[in-house]
Amino acid sequence: MSKYFIGLDLGGTKIATGIVNSKDELLASVKVPTQAEDGWEIITERMGDTIAEVMQKAGVKPTEVKAIGVCSPGALDIPNGIVIRSPNLRWFNVPLKKIIEDRFNIPTYFDNDANVAGLGENRYGAGVGSKHMLYMTISTGIGGGIIIDGKIYHGATFGAGEIGHITLDKNGPLCGCGNHGCIEAIASGPAIARNAKERLHEHPESLLHHYTNITAREVSEAAHAGDQYALSVVETAARNIGVVLAGLINTLNPDCVVIGGGVSNMGDILFKPLIAEVKERAIPSFVENLKIVPAKLGGDVGVMGAIALAQSQGNV
Amino acid sequence: MSKYFIGLDLGGTKIATGIVNSKDELLASVKVPTQAEDGWEIITERMGDTIAEVMQKAGVKPTEVKAIGVCSPGALDIPNGIVIRSPNLRWFNVPLKKIIEDRFNIPTYFDNDANVAGLGENRYGAGVGSKHMLYMTISTGIGGGIIIDGKIYHGATFGAGEIGHITLDKNGPLCGCGNHGCIEAIASGPAIARNAKERLHEHPESLLHHYTNITAREVSEAAHAGDQYALSVVETAARNIGVVLAGLINTLNPDCVVIGGGVSNMGDILFKPLIAEVKERAIPSFVENLKIVPAKLGGDVGVMGAIALAQSQGNV
Repeated sequence: MSKYFIGLDLGGTKIATGIVNSKDELLASVKVPTQAEDGWEIITERMGDTIAEVMQKAGVKPTEVKAIGVCSPGALDIPNGIVIRSPNLRWFNVPLKKIIEDRFNIPTYFDNDANVAGLGENRYGAGVGSKHMLYMTISTGIGGGIIIDGKIYHGATFGAGEIGHITLDKNGPLCGCGNHGCIEAIASGPAIARNAKERLHEHPESLLHHYTNITAREVSEAAHAGDQYALSVVETAARNIGVVLAGLINTLNPDCVVIGGGVSNMGDILFKPLIAEVKERAIPSFVENLKIVPAKLGGDVGVMGAIALAQSQGNV
Repeated sequence: MSKYFIGLDLGGTKIATGIVNSKDELLASVKVPTQAEDGWEIITERMGDTIAEVMQKAGVKPTEVKAIGVCSPGALDIPNGIVIRSPNLRWFNVPLKKIIEDRFNIPTYFDNDANVAGLGENRYGAGVGSKHMLYMTISTGIGGGIIIDGKIYHGATFGAGEIGHITLDKNGPLCGCGNHGCIEAIASGPAIARNAKERLHEHPESLLHHYTNITAREVSEAAHAGDQYALSVVETAARNIGVVLAGLINTLNPDCVVIGGGVSNMGDILFKPLIAEVKERAIPSFVENLKIVPAKLGGDVGVMGAIALAQSQGNV
């Protein structure tokens, strides 16, 4: 009987794969370096090998696996399981779903990082029990996933959740997407670092002067050490994210917002002003019982999300 | 056999009711003044009388009606069908669903104006065929409805679609909701009129000087007569709506955006700059095949939407 599910998280530096039984118990997992320089043919074989390995470790035959979930970075053709373009991996039009299905003859489902992370947090992490969940990831970029009744909401062309390119300030800084004032250009990790550097000369007392290279991590470190300037930079970013989040809450009326990505590790110095801004701006009855919480799964979010993807699609 | 559906649109000035058969053909409709001053007991009886009247006109018995849909203004308890508070009607906690079900013994479904208008446009109007539709209404306020697979997306507490209170400019004008810079405070009908009046003294040539009372309607009239200042006021509002709409498109990835409400009657002078702004800001692949169109149902949107509500809920 098909009762096992496998999830695979393909990243620029590592491939992580896991298998669960019908009780959601993780039976085995493996992690190997991606070695992007090897090219797609070798890497897709390597991915398949990790799938074979977790089955072997768990003592499970391919015929016992109901579905495989795969999450991938880059521009994707989600329904057809094709990596259209991944700059990190240097992949173009790699038919990942087909390659895996051809090797194992197991239905394989496929989605992008942010959607899969949202689904993972919904099934295994900070959003357990949420029927209307919004996931936001804040790291190098800002992305999102909308999870309704345990499924990813994809929209018309499988693009829903691109919340990093919501305009916060129409005359704001230039974004990588070519527009001005996207929240990603104002409050992502690199934007926080840029904001910190821009006015650092006005703050000779700031601990940030001790660093040769300032990223969001150093801003966080200084802020946690009590540096007022670094704290103010984080608070500004948090409040700006809060403005955008309030709009999303007014639109989607979720019961839970899970915030992940590297920047979310800043903790209270980020979450407190962010939540305060949301409460000022969102419709009061929408925030009364709303949870706004940090992600829980950390580095396992991709593999657990991919497992959840296999489960949610495999159960259709 | 139950194969008919009835829709009732309760407004501050009129009650409009219609009945369709299983082929979506409108068999009968009636419209009567609400006479809000009569109070809820008489008005709810009057509503019931219009339901009885359309059945009689169509030659349909109550047992042949599968469901009734009702749309109402004000703050609502949607699942329980209670008008919690309607300032226009001066109603508080009126159990509308129960009153109608008690009289006719027909399942009755209940929703707010914007959601029902969106559903109506989706089934009978400008959004026919859309699987992921966003409805936006621009009139005294700005509201919205999200229609996914022919159903209203309600969110966790039945509030989804409150897009008028998305912040466009966090330091912008005060909104009725108490916040600053909501799109409703910047580009609704009253906001357009206010914007026009504010800088009118700088434009002695403007046709708007000929009006004693300037509302969005006069601004539209002057703009259509070629008044450059009035045109610029409309364009600014349209572009501001476009910025917010682009964010919604990036989030929801709809295949169709239908824009209704009085301000949408301005036509091209509104739609052209609005669509231009959306195309500048939304993710290109999301707008490639996206329709952004004016609503089609006009004054009938409430009753046709209420019929669609009866159909979509009655078919569950």
